[in-house]
Amino acid sequence: MSIKVAILGFGTVGSSVARILCDLKPQGVELTHIFNRSVARKRAEWVPSTVTWTESFDEVLASDANVIVELVGGLDPAGEWVRRALEAGKSAVTGNKKLIAQHGVELDRIARAHGASLFYGAAVAGGIPVIPGLQHGLAGDQVTRLEGILNGTCNYILSRMEEGAQFADVLKDAQSLGYAEANPSEDVDGYDARAKLVILSRIALRADLAVEDIPVRTITSIAAIDFEYAGELSCTIRQISRAETRGGALLATVGPMLVPKNSPLAWSRGTENMVLVGGKYGGDVVFSGHGAGGHPTAVAVVSDLITLAHGSGNIDLPSRKAEVSGEFLLRHYIRFVVKDRPGIVGEIAGALAGEQINIHALFQRPGFGKDSLPFVVTVEPCTNSALKRALAKISSAEWLAEPPLDLQILEPEEPLK
Amino acid sequence: MSIKVAILGFGTVGSSVARILCDLKPQGVELTHIFNRSVARKRAEWVPSTVTWTESFDEVLASDANVIVELVGGLDPAGEWVRRALEAGKSAVTGNKKLIAQHGVELDRIARAHGASLFYGAAVAGGIPVIPGLQHGLAGDQVTRLEGILNGTCNYILSRMEEGAQFADVLKDAQSLGYAEANPSEDVDGYDARAKLVILSRIALRADLAVEDIPVRTITSIAAIDFEYAGELSCTIRQISRAETRGGALLATVGPMLVPKNSPLAWSRGTENMVLVGGKYGGDVVFSGHGAGGHPTAVAVVSDLITLAHGSGNIDLPSRKAEVSGEFLLRHYIRFVVKDRPGIVGEIAGALAGEQINIHALFQRPGFGKDSLPFVVTVEPCTNSALKRALAKISSAEWLAEPPLDLQILEPEEPLK
Ligand SMILES: NC(=O)c1ccc[n+]([C@@H]2O[C@H](COP(=O)([O-])OP(=O)(O)OC[C@H]3O[C@@H](n4cnc5c(N)ncnc54)[C@H](OP(=O)(O)O)[C@@H]3O)[C@@H](O)[C@H]2O)c1
Ligand SMILES: NC(=O)c1ccc[n+]([C@@H]2O[C@H](COP(=O)([O-])OP(=O)(O)OC[C@H]3O[C@@H](n4cnc5c(N)ncnc54)[C@H](OP(=O)(O)O)[C@@H]3O)[C@@H](O)[C@H]2O)c1
Repeated sequence: MSIKVAILGFGTVGSSVARILCDLKPQGVELTHIFNRSVARKRAEWVPSTVTWTESFDEVLASDANVIVELVGGLDPAGEWVRRALEAGKSAVTGNKKLIAQHGVELDRIARAHGASLFYGAAVAGGIPVIPGLQHGLAGDQVTRLEGILNGTCNYILSRMEEGAQFADVLKDAQSLGYAEANPSEDVDGYDARAKLVILSRIALRADLAVEDIPVRTITSIAAIDFEYAGELSCTIRQISRAETRGGALLATVGPMLVPKNSPLAWSRGTENMVLVGGKYGGDVVFSGHGAGGHPTAVAVVSDLITLAHGSGNIDLPSRKAEVSGEFLLRHYIRFVVKDRPGIVGEIAGALAGEQINIHALFQRPGFGKDSLPFVVTVEPCTNSALKRALAKISSAEWLAEPPLDLQILEPEEPLK
Repeated sequence: MSIKVAILGFGTVGSSVARILCDLKPQGVELTHIFNRSVARKRAEWVPSTVTWTESFDEVLASDANVIVELVGGLDPAGEWVRRALEAGKSAVTGNKKLIAQHGVELDRIARAHGASLFYGAAVAGGIPVIPGLQHGLAGDQVTRLEGILNGTCNYILSRMEEGAQFADVLKDAQSLGYAEANPSEDVDGYDARAKLVILSRIALRADLAVEDIPVRTITSIAAIDFEYAGELSCTIRQISRAETRGGALLATVGPMLVPKNSPLAWSRGTENMVLVGGKYGGDVVFSGHGAGGHPTAVAVVSDLITLAHGSGNIDLPSRKAEVSGEFLLRHYIRFVVKDRPGIVGEIAGALAGEQINIHALFQRPGFGKDSLPFVVTVEPCTNSALKRALAKISSAEWLAEPPLDLQILEPEEPLK
């Protein structure tokens, strides 16, 4: 089988896809159309003259291209274009995590109904073959746990902060390097990673989650001092996307967490992505590599095209709607910044005890003034909501110099010292 | 499409495959036959009574089973059975690395000629989806480099030695834990890893290598002192399987190497396997997990069966015959054990200089007697053969207490200190 490919969106990833197709000329994959608004300014001399450049999606739809590659991004109009292509029996390949997280189940259904295929290997972890690995290499396991570093921008920021840099400075660097948008909320507040976690959960845990149901926490509240205290616990801090089946329930959350330094997740540096998949039969498998960037992401797109050209359809593994809870039973790290006076620890202990939460340890570094004294309490496994109730009780204490920061501690493989 | 499956060989992996099929009941995959010699003693009560137990391969061949799962092992008769099944138009799934390394190209051809598929995801790195990841997720890249920890037994031995244990003791432990055979040569001398490197090279580098062409080195010559010296170079020692395209040539080798501690390959522990794939467009991707064991290996087999049941055939990426050379241009570590007397270093330097090899550094730990004094010389990048010629010149020096040990140093990401 040979496929004729139309690329929608000739931006960072779209132009890399065209570049790889022109360089490697994979057998059975022919680039026929490139679609973009104001397409004239996009024309590149290295694209063969046989390729049609167009500003009209209808022209693409009416053409003999039988696969569209959607790299426009966003829900609208990209979603509408994918839907119309599938309804016309054309297969689609996309890197649009937002679209697949929100509408993947429905689009999969439309594809099936029209004898088409929908591939989105590029939507999660760019050039790392997590999705094909899960669909073709781990379908024979029962996956019960996912832990991932799914946002390269957060990982760049946190791994630089680990080395001593300040949040604001690193964010500025990330923006000037093109890793972060002018408005970084999508990345730092966890929305980008959450969309990817929804997609992975569907494939690995066979659970359809509603995006909004997964609690997110921002990394903007992490300060340099937190890396110092994390270090005392043999941990670092990373933005972790986590989902786990426990009994019939599904736990999922995205946000900064303490990660033990002996965990592979702590070894990720820079914009690297990493995904850990825990299976009942095969144990833990880890994937890592470049999660973003035009070329790595384009590798995933071109790989999907090659799979299609070999006549392979989707591996449809049945998934079902699942309720999400963020109530992992985990140890927590709580950083207080207080105006020092006697009795504070007693009040904190009392508030925690009221929710049956046991203190595990207390850390206080020297060298801070009495007016703004940071110290850390770690607690035995408890749920987020129990901890929230406990902290609410002391939220108006006059000795609090700022609201406390609580972070889950990723279950270590060996007990924390 | 639904497939009817016959398992050949009800041993460690074969029985795990049956177990997972009975537990998970993947859609479209039906277990119909189990074949083994003296099959009566193999019968298990948890296998459904609809399954036929047989000692006759001809019965399997004549049956309506349309997929055979070969988990007997060895070239003969397993290879003959796979060939006959493919010729009868049945697809085959195998975990037999020896067979696929030696005869994979030919068996692939037979499969294609008879409209059948041949899958061997379990043949390399057991439960880690390296093969499906390469075929479905990295086909869109041009892979130029493979570095792997492909033998769990060697990794168990070397990572235990890193912590201070002696080779002989660890080997005994590995044998009693079932990680190593009574005759461990297949593992420790590199033959097992070499077969896997041949398979990965075919898929990732599109190069058909003759197994015997790849130079192997044993790990049995590594002593505790080598870990101490490696540590001074911020390195550890691992059995590394390595293949790289450089210009038109293909470099490949298997054996113990010095691995910088900041490389992911140095983080592997116990029987873990790890594969690093370097691509022109996507950069480095790392896979890690359990490379062996009944259940993890069975996950790969069952995943292949699910892929088949979804009607996906082989992704045939064209490969071509390639000449192998072991002549990586790498730094080396050379450990001498000498009867100390003045002038030795001068003689070594002279022998190396005769081959244009530059000394990089010299290390000597205190606390050894004059009669059996170990010290280490590191040299700037050179080929194995140049180094071999240089060492030959001093091979009969009366001050050598034992033959020198030379190891390649895996190119570090940052310069060695
Ligand atoms: N970049 C990455 O590293 C990465 C990684 C993984 C996944 N992805 C996903 O890949 C997709 C594309 O990302 P990207 O980084 O390549 O984005 P990009 O550089 O902004 O490219 C988008 C392209 O689509 C065009 N476009 C946008 N809206 C359009 C419209 N209404 N009509 C016609 N053309 C339109 C843009 O044209 P203009 O030039 O006129 O704006 C641009 O050429 C997104 O879904 C993204 O989430 C990206
Ligand atoms: N074990 C692992 O972790 C692992 C990992 C990756 C790949 N593999 C590969 O998977 C394959 C199977 O390995 P395994 O560990 O499962 O081996 P195993 O435990 O020795 O099982 C082999 C089975 O085949 C049967 N058998 C052997 N020769 C036979 C013959 N001539 N006729 C009929 N039955 C015969 C054996 O029966 P008897 O009981 O009578 O000997 C046994 O039940 C090998 O190719 C191996 O390289 C294994």
